[in-house]
Amino acid sequence: MPFDPQTLAYDSNGLIPAIAQDHGTGEVLMLAWMNAEAVAQTLATGRVTYWSRSRAAFWIKGETSGHTQRLVELRVDCDRDCVLVLVAQEGPACHTNRRTCFYTAVRDGAEMEIMAPIP
Amino acid sequence: MPFDPQTLAYDSNGLIPAIAQDHGTGEVLMLAWMNAEAVAQTLATGRVTYWSRSRAAFWIKGETSGHTQRLVELRVDCDRDCVLVLVAQEGPACHTNRRTCFYTAVRDGAEMEIMAPIP
Repeated sequence: MPFDPQTLAYDSNGLIPAIAQDHGTGEVLMLAWMNAEAVAQTLATGRVTYWSRSRAAFWIKGETSGHTQRLVELRVDCDRDCVLVLVAQEGPACHTNRRTCFYTAVRDGAEMEIMAPIP
Repeated sequence: MPFDPQTLAYDSNGLIPAIAQDHGTGEVLMLAWMNAEAVAQTLATGRVTYWSRSRAAFWIKGETSGHTQRLVELRVDCDRDCVLVLVAQEGPACHTNRRTCFYTAVRDGAEMEIMAPIP
């Protein structure tokens, strides 16, 4: 069946959560948002493209930082209201220069950083 | 620093997206939603608990199906607006009886199922 980005279930703002996972290591790198056009552009260009809610603009990941995400595969969940992008991540995914955005763990009721910024 | 679920950044509905990942295999199993109380209950009980938007009720994963998620670790992202739960998944995570909800891939512009239901 041909894939049509319009058939996904977007929220009231026209957005769908997109989980980025490193295709090699399996690390969950980040969660961001896409609209239908961002999904289409990601598939067409192979460069993972989000919709920045804060800037209200397309966000080609790594366009300014160089920390790009090359699309390896896009997957859709059972409810069609979330996508998973398997990516080849260039450098850190997080704007804090850490490999992933999920560098804070809750252990024994306390928060702790479990990952340092890349030097 | 003690972790307080109230310090997370919830959306206008009081919800935060929660990504469940198999702690052993690294598979991304599903995305669902939590409110502050669901985060607190998940940490307190070790049984991953979501907020079901369709039923408007707490959803202790696997309570009826037996396909529970035991919490291994909860992580918070840099913006504090998404959580990652590393889990020990009992049986399939997806209500379609597949291991994960992300069983549909887009390849060469077409959708295809890449995972069969567990027999």
